[in-house]
Amino acid sequence: MNQRLEKLTGWMKENNIDVCLVTSTENVFYLSGFYCVPHERLLGLAVFQESEPFLVCPGMEKHDAKSSGWNQEIIGYSDIENPWALVEKAVKNRINGARRIAVEKEHMNVERYEHVSKIFPTAEFISAEDKLKSLRMIKDASELKIIQEACALADYAIEVGVQELSEGKTELEVLSAVEFALKKKGVKKMSFATMVLTGKNAASPHGSPGQTKIQKGDLVLFDLGVVIDNYCSDITRTVAFGDINDKQREIYNTVLKAQRAAVEASRPGVSCAEIDLTARRIIEEAGYGEYFPHRLGHGLGISVHEAPNMTSANELILEEGMVYTIEPGIYVPNVAGVRIEDDIVITSNGAEMLTKFPKDLQIIK
Amino acid sequence: MNQRLEKLTGWMKENNIDVCLVTSTENVFYLSGFYCVPHERLLGLAVFQESEPFLVCPGMEKHDAKSSGWNQEIIGYSDIENPWALVEKAVKNRINGARRIAVEKEHMNVERYEHVSKIFPTAEFISAEDKLKSLRMIKDASELKIIQEACALADYAIEVGVQELSEGKTELEVLSAVEFALKKKGVKKMSFATMVLTGKNAASPHGSPGQTKIQKGDLVLFDLGVVIDNYCSDITRTVAFGDINDKQREIYNTVLKAQRAAVEASRPGVSCAEIDLTARRIIEEAGYGEYFPHRLGHGLGISVHEAPNMTSANELILEEGMVYTIEPGIYVPNVAGVRIEDDIVITSNGAEMLTKFPKDLQIIK
Repeated sequence: MNQRLEKLTGWMKENNIDVCLVTSTENVFYLSGFYCVPHERLLGLAVFQESEPFLVCPGMEKHDAKSSGWNQEIIGYSDIENPWALVEKAVKNRINGARRIAVEKEHMNVERYEHVSKIFPTAEFISAEDKLKSLRMIKDASELKIIQEACALADYAIEVGVQELSEGKTELEVLSAVEFALKKKGVKKMSFATMVLTGKNAASPHGSPGQTKIQKGDLVLFDLGVVIDNYCSDITRTVAFGDINDKQREIYNTVLKAQRAAVEASRPGVSCAEIDLTARRIIEEAGYGEYFPHRLGHGLGISVHEAPNMTSANELILEEGMVYTIEPGIYVPNVAGVRIEDDIVITSNGAEMLTKFPKDLQIIK
Repeated sequence: MNQRLEKLTGWMKENNIDVCLVTSTENVFYLSGFYCVPHERLLGLAVFQESEPFLVCPGMEKHDAKSSGWNQEIIGYSDIENPWALVEKAVKNRINGARRIAVEKEHMNVERYEHVSKIFPTAEFISAEDKLKSLRMIKDASELKIIQEACALADYAIEVGVQELSEGKTELEVLSAVEFALKKKGVKKMSFATMVLTGKNAASPHGSPGQTKIQKGDLVLFDLGVVIDNYCSDITRTVAFGDINDKQREIYNTVLKAQRAAVEASRPGVSCAEIDLTARRIIEEAGYGEYFPHRLGHGLGISVHEAPNMTSANELILEEGMVYTIEPGIYVPNVAGVRIEDDIVITSNGAEMLTKFPKDLQIIK
């Protein structure tokens, strides 16, 4: 049994949990090494205190599950079989009833919950999520190596994007060039839909790239990430295309100051809330508080959004190995949209930058 | 209130459902016109028999919700507010308790279900999914117009892909060229990760494109789709690069025969199972039954996989306005992987092709 499964079964024993049924692509991958996107079909990993765990997956994925290195039982099912009957049998082969069952309450849907409840009508359901989040939150050396690679490619993508800027090009043209360059480097998947937003479009925190053309005096915002071996990076840079006005410059420098302060403040022993507030106070003091409507950042790993949640309400204390984004933004409609985002990892006495593209205001002529 | 909401409230009245809480991006969009990907945050549409419905969404999306045309209440919340407290208040402003509550049991997670259960501890939970599936399954004229556009772009993508083939190019190079061409046409999103698979890679029904180079004698499989105005298309074509052997040709022609027979059989009054079996029998009779491990196809619309499910177990009867894929495949390891997929819509007396790229075996020299 691998170390991650051992930690999970340790927790199960401490909490008298008879079975833990993990069903999300990300957590199944984290625990088993098998990455599978089953769409609406059931994917699951059942873990027991003493008995052998098993995987359940669509039949057509069984071969890939084996190739991924999982060498314990794999239950495949066809599109016309009921996987729950197979799960019930496999579980009952291993244990006589269950009093406490852990599931991913934020992932498992009500329909599946009703299936599991029918198999064990008297069981109490515990959330496995907090435990899995806290395990995944601390990255080991092998994970960090992959994330570093994903971040280096994110830096490269920004470099390509900035080079591609020219007057009259559309957001989508620049975006295509960036993704094409990444694919040539072997990148198969982006962390999320790449954003290239210019001028007024950038003033929406979740705008969508389109046929808007880059014009002199625009701030151009890039937000993108790369997936390498199922781990994500996430970077945002905003650059000036041609000369910008004083207001735009003030907004840029406020975001930059807030971003750098939050990076500086990041170290073991400080709370997530304190990091968020470090940046937020700077933006508020500059008079832009109402234009920074989102959290400072989010954890990053197998999911592009995972723990720790970098909000002013999260009292979680930072520890070595945590990886998260720091991405303050100011969006003033019709004036400017600026966001600057880096990925960092907490070290024994501070933080290390994972994304490294320069952040001082760049004016592209 | 729009026609779709009227149909939903009609169903609620017939079934004594006091509140219907819709939480998936797709169904919220279908009913409200507001398309929002809230990631881990709560998005919801609460519908009542008589009272005004309301939307709940992340605060930063509220502006987009208004712009999308929703002119009833919108509750926005910040990252540090508890949206459930706001939902509880808004629901209790409208109704005094609820005995029966409909939710999307395949979408709503256990954590949210527990929140709703706390608000209404004695309520019975009904699945809203079957009703929503059956509403969405029958496309209206405005939906069909968009899907036709998405399908025409999918045809175009295949055309580009076939033109891009040349010896020694990698799967990812061809894939990039296809997506670049689509972006230049204004396409912002693919229905799923585009696949270009060659030779042995194509023999996996869910292979992943990489650095494999196209060689003479390969069958090259393209599987892709385009999202237009939140509706998906989905097409697969397999072409021969250079001369192929008799076995490859036999496999190709078997898949083609099965695919055409299933299209021919598609009309109102026939069951989904019968359509699947029409294709499956042809493949089985040719001796390849075990190499066709998946369902014949799936419904298509706002989701790339939706009802009707085209399996041999689905006795649902086809009706005018249903849109689905027909995509038989044969995957013989180390020999050939062939899949041919079209999107069709059921008409009053038959079916109309939505994807139209030629299907006879093409040998690219």
